[in-house]
Amino acid sequence: MSEFLKVKTAVEVLAILEQIRPLPVEMITLDLAMGRVSAADVFSPEPVPQFDRATMDGFAVRARDTFGASEGLPAMLERAGEVLMGEEAKTAVEPGKAVAIPTGGMLPQGADAVVMVEYTQALDEGTIEVTRPVAPGENVLGTGDDIRQGEKIASRGSVLRPQDVGVLAALGIASVEVFRRPRVALISTGDEVVPVDTRPLQPGKVRDINSFALAAQIESAGAEVGMRAKIVDSLEELISFSVRALDDHDMIVLSGGSSVGIRDYTLQVLDQLPDSKLLLHGVAIRPGKPTILGLSGGKIFWGLPGQPVSALITCRAFVVPSIERLQGRSTGAPTGGFRAALNRRLPSVHGRTDFVPVSISAAEDGTPEALPIFGKSGAISILTRADGYVVVPEHVEGYDKGTEVVVYSF
Amino acid sequence: MSEFLKVKTAVEVLAILEQIRPLPVEMITLDLAMGRVSAADVFSPEPVPQFDRATMDGFAVRARDTFGASEGLPAMLERAGEVLMGEEAKTAVEPGKAVAIPTGGMLPQGADAVVMVEYTQALDEGTIEVTRPVAPGENVLGTGDDIRQGEKIASRGSVLRPQDVGVLAALGIASVEVFRRPRVALISTGDEVVPVDTRPLQPGKVRDINSFALAAQIESAGAEVGMRAKIVDSLEELISFSVRALDDHDMIVLSGGSSVGIRDYTLQVLDQLPDSKLLLHGVAIRPGKPTILGLSGGKIFWGLPGQPVSALITCRAFVVPSIERLQGRSTGAPTGGFRAALNRRLPSVHGRTDFVPVSISAAEDGTPEALPIFGKSGAISILTRADGYVVVPEHVEGYDKGTEVVVYSF
Repeated sequence: MSEFLKVKTAVEVLAILEQIRPLPVEMITLDLAMGRVSAADVFSPEPVPQFDRATMDGFAVRARDTFGASEGLPAMLERAGEVLMGEEAKTAVEPGKAVAIPTGGMLPQGADAVVMVEYTQALDEGTIEVTRPVAPGENVLGTGDDIRQGEKIASRGSVLRPQDVGVLAALGIASVEVFRRPRVALISTGDEVVPVDTRPLQPGKVRDINSFALAAQIESAGAEVGMRAKIVDSLEELISFSVRALDDHDMIVLSGGSSVGIRDYTLQVLDQLPDSKLLLHGVAIRPGKPTILGLSGGKIFWGLPGQPVSALITCRAFVVPSIERLQGRSTGAPTGGFRAALNRRLPSVHGRTDFVPVSISAAEDGTPEALPIFGKSGAISILTRADGYVVVPEHVEGYDKGTEVVVYSF
Repeated sequence: MSEFLKVKTAVEVLAILEQIRPLPVEMITLDLAMGRVSAADVFSPEPVPQFDRATMDGFAVRARDTFGASEGLPAMLERAGEVLMGEEAKTAVEPGKAVAIPTGGMLPQGADAVVMVEYTQALDEGTIEVTRPVAPGENVLGTGDDIRQGEKIASRGSVLRPQDVGVLAALGIASVEVFRRPRVALISTGDEVVPVDTRPLQPGKVRDINSFALAAQIESAGAEVGMRAKIVDSLEELISFSVRALDDHDMIVLSGGSSVGIRDYTLQVLDQLPDSKLLLHGVAIRPGKPTILGLSGGKIFWGLPGQPVSALITCRAFVVPSIERLQGRSTGAPTGGFRAALNRRLPSVHGRTDFVPVSISAAEDGTPEALPIFGKSGAISILTRADGYVVVPEHVEGYDKGTEVVVYSF
C-alpha cells in the first residue's frame, strides 16, 4: 500500500466524493418530506388549477359586455346568482348578465373575466353597474395556467423545501420517493480522551469533544448518528466495534486522538474490515492533513484528525459532502457557502491549501465581513470564535484585505 | 375594536414581536443541544488546557538550553525519558536535559518550550542534537491560554452550533439550560379546502397546501407542530379546537381559506378565546395584508391569509421570528437573510411594502443574483420557482437592475 500515491489535494478529494452513489430509496409520507432529497423527477398528474378560477372578489362576466364602460357611462348588467366558495359554478353567465364570485371561486360557463368588486356598484337588487372594462382572461387563472399537466415539479437530487412540500400537497401527492438517510457510527479514540462528564480532569487528559461536535454536524447534514463509542487505543476493540457498526450503518467516522500511533491504527482498522480499500491517505491541506478515506464493501470509512478544530473542519469540508451524496444530493462539493469580504490580510503558503477559521460580522454597510482567526494549534477557543472557514488554494499566496471570499459556515 | 388602529407596517409588526418573552427553560443533555438556544450565559468552570501542553511532537526543553543552536553548531541535550499521551508528566526537565513529548502531551516540570522533532537528531541513545533555538513558550499551549477559568463561552439567546457543543464538551458541561421549544397548533380553514389525498378533485375545491407547507417551515424554525386540523368554515369547531389547542400549545397558526368571510371568522375565534387581545389586524404589505396577530393569555394566535404564497411569505416574515423569540433568540427580526444583486428591474408602488418572491441563481462571477418572480395572484407555481423573498419598503418606488438586496430564503 503506497502512501504517497494516496495523498490528494482538496479538489481531488471532492472529485472522489462525486463518485459516491446514493443510498436506496424509500417512500415517506409528505409530512416527513421536509429537508429530504427527492429520488425521482416528479411530474404533475393534473393541471393546476383544474378549473378557471377568479383571482379577485367580484363578478364573473363576459368581457365584451364591459367594453367601453366608464365612470360616466357604466355598463349595466343583470345579477344572475352567485358562485359559492368550494362549490361547482352551476349558473352559466349569459350575455348581459353577471354572477357574484369570491377570490378562488370557480368561473361559471360563459364567463371569461372577473370585474373587481371595487369597479361595480349595486344599482338595485337585480342590477349592477360596471365602471371599468375588463379584458378576456382578466382576474382569472385559467385551467393549467399555473401548472400544466405533466410539468416537472421536483427534480431527482433536489432537497424538498417547505414550498416544494406545499406544491406536492396541492397536487394530491401524499407520499414521495426519497433517498434513505445515512446512518453514521462515530468513534473517538485516543489514550488521553476521557468521557465528557469526567471532573476533575486527571493531568494529561482531555474530554471527548469530537463525539459531540461531529455528531451535531453530521446530524445537521441530515444523517442519523447510530452507534457511538469512545475507545482508548485498543486495535482489537476498534476493529470489533467497526465490524459490528458495518452491519447497520452506512458510514464510520473515526476521529483519532492526537497520539502519534493513532493514524496507523486507523489504517490497520480499515485493513481488517471486509472487502476494504484505501482511497485516500492524507490531504494536502492545513489543518486536516492526516484525513483518511476508505471503503468496506459499499460502506464509507473516514479517519479524521483528533484535534477538534481539524476534525470539525475536515468533517464540514469532506464528511458532510459525502453524507449529502449518500442522500442523493447532486454535487459532492460542500454546499452552504456564502460570500464575505476579508477584513484583514490573510497570508498563506504557496503550494499548500489552507482552511482558515473565520468569524463573521457585519461591515458598516451591512455586508458580511470575514475575520481570519489565528491561534495556537490545538486551541479549542478557535471553535467558539469561528462561524466557518475560508479556503486558500495551493496556488494562491494569501489574500489581501477586502478580497471577497467564500465562507463555509459550520 | 377599531380595525384601523390595528393596521401596522411590517416594521411595526417586528417591533411587536420584539416584546415576546421566551418560554420557560429546561435542562437537556449535551447530545440534544445542537440548534437549541442557550438560556444562560455559560462560563468556563476551569482553565483550558488545565496543564501546559505541547502543540507539536518533539522534545520538552528549557528554552535557554537551545539559545544559539544552529545546523553548524547544534545544542547537545541529554535524553531524560518521555511523556506518554494522556499521562501525567513525571520526570522534571533539568538543565541540559530533554524529554520526548507527543502533540497534546503534558509539559514536564522545569520545561518551558518544545523543540519540534524535525529540528532534532539522535546522536546516540542518550543524546540529541538541537539545530534551532526555541523561545520560552514556543510550541506550548499554557494553562488557561486557550480558555481562562470564568471566561464566557456561550451567551444567553445564542443558538448552539456544533462548535459550541464541542467546547461545552471540552469543559465537562454535560447538560445545558435552554429555552423550551414552542409547540404550535396548525389550523387550515376554508370551504374549498379538501384533504391532500383527495383525487379526483371536485370542481371548485383545492387541496390543503398550507397544513404541509407551513408545518415544514415552522418545524425548520425549531418548533414542534402538535395538533393540526383542517376545519371547514364552522365557527364553533374552530373555537372548540383552538380552546383545546391552548391547553398544551404555545401558539396557534390559523390560515384562512380564500373565502371572504374567513377573516371575520378568525377575529371571532380570537375573541372567544380566554383573556384574548388583538394586537394586529392587517399589515400594510403585499401580499399578506389580512394577517392577524392576537394573544390569549400568554399564548400567541396568528391568522394568516389562505392563499399559499401569501401564507408562506407571512409565515417566514412574521411567524418564524415569533417562534425564534419564544425560543429566546435575541432579535425579533427575520434571520437568515443574504445579499444578492437584482438581475432585473423591480418596480413597486410608493406607500406600500412589497414582499416579492425571487429565485436565486449564480451570476457569471459566481455571486448570487435574485430574479423577481411575477405571476397571477393565487398561482402556486410561484412557490416552486421561489427560493425566498425580497422586501421593497413603502418609501421606495422599486429598485433598479443590479441593486443589492437582502433575500430571506424559505
